Order: sequence, then C-alpha cells, then structure tokens
Amino acid sequence: MKKLNKGCFITFEGADGCGKTTQIKLLKEYLDKKNIESITTLEPGGCELGKNLRQILLHYDKPVADKCEIFLYLADRAQHVETTIKPALLDNKVVLCDRYVDSTLAYQGYGRGYDIDLMLNLNEIATSNLKPDLTILLDVSTEVAQTRVGSEKDRMEGEGLIFHKKVREGYLELAKKEPERIKIVDASQTIEEVFCEIKKIIEEFLNQ
Amino acid sequence: MKKLNKGCFITFEGADGCGKTTQIKLLKEYLDKKNIESITTLEPGGCELGKNLRQILLHYDKPVADKCEIFLYLADRAQHVETTIKPALLDNKVVLCDRYVDSTLAYQGYGRGYDIDLMLNLNEIATSNLKPDLTILLDVSTEVAQTRVGSEKDRMEGEGLIFHKKVREGYLELAKKEPERIKIVDASQTIEEVFCEIKKIIEEFLNQ
Repeated sequence: MKKLNKGCFITFEGADGCGKTTQIKLLKEYLDKKNIESITTLEPGGCELGKNLRQILLHYDKPVADKCEIFLYLADRAQHVETTIKPALLDNKVVLCDRYVDSTLAYQGYGRGYDIDLMLNLNEIATSNLKPDLTILLDVSTEVAQTRVGSEKDRMEGEGLIFHKKVREGYLELAKKEPERIKIVDASQTIEEVFCEIKKIIEEFLNQ
Repeated sequence: MKKLNKGCFITFEGADGCGKTTQIKLLKEYLDKKNIESITTLEPGGCELGKNLRQILLHYDKPVADKCEIFLYLADRAQHVETTIKPALLDNKVVLCDRYVDSTLAYQGYGRGYDIDLMLNLNEIATSNLKPDLTILLDVSTEVAQTRVGSEKDRMEGEGLIFHKKVREGYLELAKKEPERIKIVDASQTIEEVFCEIKKIIEEFLNQ
C-alpha cells in the first residue's frame, strides 16, 4: 500500500448494532501497523462541545422536537468538522468517522420523513460541503441489529422497528445513488469476515 | 382594553444592556393588573432542554464554530416554539419573549456577516414559520449598552464594539423593512419613560 500524501476521510454508517465501533477499531490497528497515520472519531460527540450535545441527543428523557433534533445534529457536525476533522485532514491523516451526513439523511430524512434535499442542503451548510472520500455501509437486517443492541437502548435506538426499517432502506437507497463512494458490506457475517471485506475495500481505495 | 380571544406573540429585541428584562417584567405586571393572561420567556434557554444550550452558547470557554453557534440557536428555538410558545398561544395567552428570530438576523446575519436570506430560511424551518405579531426594539447606542452590561460579559457580550455596532445597524435595518411589526423605542430614556412608550404601543396594538 502506498504512503498517503494527503489526508482522506472515511465514514462508517449503519444501524446501531451493525458493528461500526468494532470494525473502526480493527481498521485503526491495521493502519497503525502499516504506519499510516489515522484518527478515529464519532458523531454525535466527536469533539468536546459535542459531548454535551450527544448527551441531549441520545439520553434526554423528555420529548425532543424533531427540528430541534435535526439542528442539534447539525451543530455537533459543524463544530466537529471545524475542530477535529478538517485539522486532521490538513495534517494528512486518515479520518475514520463513526456516522456523518448519511446518518442524518437516513434517520431524519428517510426515518422521520423530512425532505432529503432539505437535509442535504442543511448538511452542506454545516460541513461547508466537506464530503467523505469513502463510506462503508455495514448493512444488517433490522431484527439482527436490534438483538445486538440489547435491552439498554438510547433515545434513537429506542425508536420502533418500523422506524429502523425505514432507516435501513434509506441507507440502501443512498448507496444506490452513490455506488462509487458508498460501499455496502454484509454485516451479518462474523467480525473477521466483515473486516476482511473492509480491508479489501480500503486497500483498493488507498492504492488508487 | 378589550379582552383577548386569541393568543398573541410579542418579542423584545435589542442589545444586551438595552433594558429588555426590566421592561418585560413591567409589562407582565401591567397585563396581570388588566387580567390579561401572559407568560414571559426568553431565548436562548426558554425551555428546559434549551437551558443546556444557553450554557454552551453564552458560557462555553473555548471557540465555538460560527455555524455550530447558528445551529444551536436554531435548535433552542425549535424546541422553545414547540414546547413553550405554541402551547401558550393555543391557550390564548400573550407570550412576551426576550429575543427571537430577529436576534439571529441581527447577530449572526448582520453581526457575523452570514447571508440574511439564508438566516431567514433556516429560521422559517426551525419555527415552522411562526412570526411575532409585534416586536419592540429597544434601541440604544452601543456605547451606552456596553456600559450598562458592565465588566462581567458573557460570550456574545464579549464581542468587540464593531460587532455590536453592526448588530445595532442590523436591527434598525430590520425595523425599516417591517415598520408595521417592529416598533423602535428609544432606550436611552429612563425606565419609566421607556415603559410609558411601550405601554402606548401595546395598548394600541391590543385594541386593534
């Protein structure tokens, strides 16, 4: 694998319970061994200010207005891009990010039914149009994802099965629209099998 | 003054130090005496969730990205409209609100230089296009406002004189665009003189 001479931005998407955290950890170790500098981060809550917002978004125990939720995700993202993602990219690092714009499109757009183009426009404002170079979509049936999450669910995980099915369909729709950027990996396989697929995609991508 | 048979939404705008809090308190007492039901509220932080956001917006001690700031104000506003303002209006109350959409237009639009139409569009989304019936703009020179605020300044108050001058000019510009809704009151006068003017405006407005 050739050395990078510029940063690159890789996002991981999929339902809670699809295995993003585990796979990002494995990929980080793999890149470390190859001496490719990288950072791992997440949304919401990848930067210090965002940790407060993550607490509200995932654990606030009273109703959160849909539009409040949308703008909180955008606020978190705007700060995260400015203080964490952009500086790392400028430092020629690989940024491995657990959730990004596609999450808003899938959850608030397809899941809650807000206009996809509007969600896209708002995200373009929040991110100053910073797009991922590559996105790994870990796809797994809603039933399997829900079992993996277990009974201790946060605010978003606690939404019903129909909501999560819409989110999954949304993700697959997004992947269909941008097959060059979004690579679907079957996340019903074992951890090792999933990582083997991801490794192949990453090697191919970094060797381009 | 006739009894209200529907709620009405009155906002107060102007620089910190212009006397909004005092005047809202006086107006609330005046309406109480007239047996007109009203609530007082404020932005940011008028609802429970918003109190957390107010803490970040006014007291976060590290840099906040401009766009993060904009989206946090919008998140606060979306939740505030849904959980506080709309229910009170549906209950036929007068809502007296310290800051609303015009603050974003003045501070983030005119003050920080973000496109006014964009700020307006984002606010239409956040508020589902709920507009104030009447807005009292307490206008005072930036120098006087800054003296009144004193030395213990929050994050927004701590911005320089040039910023605050742009905000004031912005407010006056907005009033020029919507003279029917936005009434300018000279806030360099005494508390009593200012309230006397506000009372006249309110009486005229409620008797329409």
